[in-house]
Amino acid sequence: MRQSQLFTKTRREAPKDEVAKNAQLLIRAGYIHKEMAGVYSFLPLGLRVLNKVIQIIREEMNEIGGQEVHLTALQDPITWQTSGRWSDEANDTWFKTRLHGAELHGGGELGLANTHEEALAALMRGHITSYKDLPLYAYQFQTKFRNERRAKSGILRAREFLMKDLYSFSRTEEEFRDFYEQVAAAYLRIFKRVGLGGKTYRTFASGGSFSKYSDEFQTICPAGEDIIYLNKEKRVAVNKEVYTEEVLADLKLDRKKLKEVKAIEVGNIFPLGTKYSEALGLTYRDEVGDSRPVIMGSYGIGPGRVMGTVAEIFSDEAGLSWPQSVAPFTIHLIELPSKDAAIKQRAGELYQKFCDAGVEVLYDDRDLRAGEKFADSDLLGLPYRVVIGEKIEADGLYEVKNRASGEVNRLNEVAVLELTAK
Amino acid sequence: MRQSQLFTKTRREAPKDEVAKNAQLLIRAGYIHKEMAGVYSFLPLGLRVLNKVIQIIREEMNEIGGQEVHLTALQDPITWQTSGRWSDEANDTWFKTRLHGAELHGGGELGLANTHEEALAALMRGHITSYKDLPLYAYQFQTKFRNERRAKSGILRAREFLMKDLYSFSRTEEEFRDFYEQVAAAYLRIFKRVGLGGKTYRTFASGGSFSKYSDEFQTICPAGEDIIYLNKEKRVAVNKEVYTEEVLADLKLDRKKLKEVKAIEVGNIFPLGTKYSEALGLTYRDEVGDSRPVIMGSYGIGPGRVMGTVAEIFSDEAGLSWPQSVAPFTIHLIELPSKDAAIKQRAGELYQKFCDAGVEVLYDDRDLRAGEKFADSDLLGLPYRVVIGEKIEADGLYEVKNRASGEVNRLNEVAVLELTAK
Repeated sequence: MRQSQLFTKTRREAPKDEVAKNAQLLIRAGYIHKEMAGVYSFLPLGLRVLNKVIQIIREEMNEIGGQEVHLTALQDPITWQTSGRWSDEANDTWFKTRLHGAELHGGGELGLANTHEEALAALMRGHITSYKDLPLYAYQFQTKFRNERRAKSGILRAREFLMKDLYSFSRTEEEFRDFYEQVAAAYLRIFKRVGLGGKTYRTFASGGSFSKYSDEFQTICPAGEDIIYLNKEKRVAVNKEVYTEEVLADLKLDRKKLKEVKAIEVGNIFPLGTKYSEALGLTYRDEVGDSRPVIMGSYGIGPGRVMGTVAEIFSDEAGLSWPQSVAPFTIHLIELPSKDAAIKQRAGELYQKFCDAGVEVLYDDRDLRAGEKFADSDLLGLPYRVVIGEKIEADGLYEVKNRASGEVNRLNEVAVLELTAK
Repeated sequence: MRQSQLFTKTRREAPKDEVAKNAQLLIRAGYIHKEMAGVYSFLPLGLRVLNKVIQIIREEMNEIGGQEVHLTALQDPITWQTSGRWSDEANDTWFKTRLHGAELHGGGELGLANTHEEALAALMRGHITSYKDLPLYAYQFQTKFRNERRAKSGILRAREFLMKDLYSFSRTEEEFRDFYEQVAAAYLRIFKRVGLGGKTYRTFASGGSFSKYSDEFQTICPAGEDIIYLNKEKRVAVNKEVYTEEVLADLKLDRKKLKEVKAIEVGNIFPLGTKYSEALGLTYRDEVGDSRPVIMGSYGIGPGRVMGTVAEIFSDEAGLSWPQSVAPFTIHLIELPSKDAAIKQRAGELYQKFCDAGVEVLYDDRDLRAGEKFADSDLLGLPYRVVIGEKIEADGLYEVKNRASGEVNRLNEVAVLELTAK
């Protein structure tokens, strides 16, 4: 894309009320726009990053047999009343709204999707009847609304955010556990692919009423709201909320080998047992014709939170520094100002060559000073910066800078393409 | 995809409270799920259709220079109060919700996105300063919420629905009009690509306060809520709402050559003038340094409504019949029940060959009677049905049925691939 066509502008300052580093940088770089506290819109560059995160998650969900659906944000209160989660006491992050007239049970109030366990269980009643229909796995990328009292963490904790939520429907505890572990493995692949592999730990957390523990995926980061105790060698951690002597003994972990760190919960997987299937009447006939409740699990990742975590971790004073797998473009091609029209022409030709080779390039063809272009480039944080100017290109080599390492090389076209190939 | 893995089941009957043909068929075929009146979730096959419609629209929006963004559903009332559209008198389809505490202007009430003119105008204040920043075009696929009093048209008029909304920002009336016509042309390409070309007319409709007319794109269909008067030769129409002698004279249309039909508004394009830019202070400095308000336009298509319109028009007593461009799969490969294990093996091999050739195939490998498979196949409505059974395949030819025309041919593999190539 030609940068002269990109409508977003960079800013020197973030809004004064924005205290989170991820949002400060993403706003300054023109990736997102703050509508209100905890409510952020995605601009072209930000949407490209978000879509790359989404696509990585989608591939891994399909790989383990997930079928993609898209449920609604408006939710019928009846299902929530049935499961006992409709009241503000049961859930203090409800956004509710009102339907014209009072066509609904309960006087016309609707819920805005906080999560979808109830909705999925109700939906599946129409599609699950026999043991032959199971197991099955459905997932979606869908907007969730949570009326957080405080929203000071940028896109790490928004009031409106996209979530990938997967739900499993199994016959037996064994069948459920087998898939649960498949999801855990898929999650580790996802976090590795987006660049968070090294810092992300499978973490024991509280399990609700169906399971001793649930599993969180926690990424070490000073901006995190959680405290975890991790064992680097075993690559496991324990959330502070269950960090007791009893639990440590149960998990065979030695307190002395655990390190306390702040972390961001980038994903969680959760055994639901038969809570929702029993409440909503989601049953199947087994091999001998008996009716049994379906065993459920739910598995969440917020693509926006993942993006915010990457922004927190891969950034410095000068700006963002995206891993290639989620970068909006791979190469930032900078054309330096020159009175020689041949420079612009050569830059345009190189841009076209890179595009033809399938590389994603942001081409800074704007009429700006070199210093401004370099500052913008550091702020936007594409993995490779390639510069074209009078002096630099005389020998047919281009200056290529790696944004993350700062390393600068002088390479010909072929070498640039090799370097930036995925 | 193997149909034995698809979790959705077909149904003989639609829900009793569902009166719209599009929703009846889509629910019976397992494409959508009705959450409440006017609120529908998309299941795997339905989401595939919706995503194909979205991708066609996206390609045409990118082609005319649109930049994709994603704004939020939660909206700050201050922008709406500024433009005068916050009150229920100004807009009777608001869904509103309440933020914890009262951090916002006006006591903590928020709007759920009804449309995004105000939000986009406010956002662009941070990115438009000079005439050099214009023109620019931003679009999104985003969920809209409209509190319709009646919602009896299935996915043609839902209370929660996806909309592609494009907004243009121009300097002069001429620049605006030039883009407006580019969008009109792109819309006609979109409707042609999804299969609605022949039945869709650019239609004069009321223009609000900035323009004599706006333009709707109306598809002739008995399920339509609009009445239009069309001239087939000129391929234009007039909406009943502006159908007066004065308008006909202005448009040089002869009343005698116009035919009254019911139609579905599948798209609209709308001049906004400077209403929102003046209200929200969206200005730019022109070449001589004067401040001027930006000229805006908005352009909408509902992908779900397009899908519903296609379902209304391309269907018969037996079920749906998708145009190939939006079909969830191109081929429905039916393996007939047989005691000969070789049949299943050959079917599996053919499925793999088609997949390897890049054709999208739904492979009915289920253990069901032939009659049930054929009935399901007609209901699902994939463009080509290919049957494999003992007798049929002895000569190396497959029975291939065109769902739309009913035509049956006996073809070899290569011929099947040629027939189903895009």
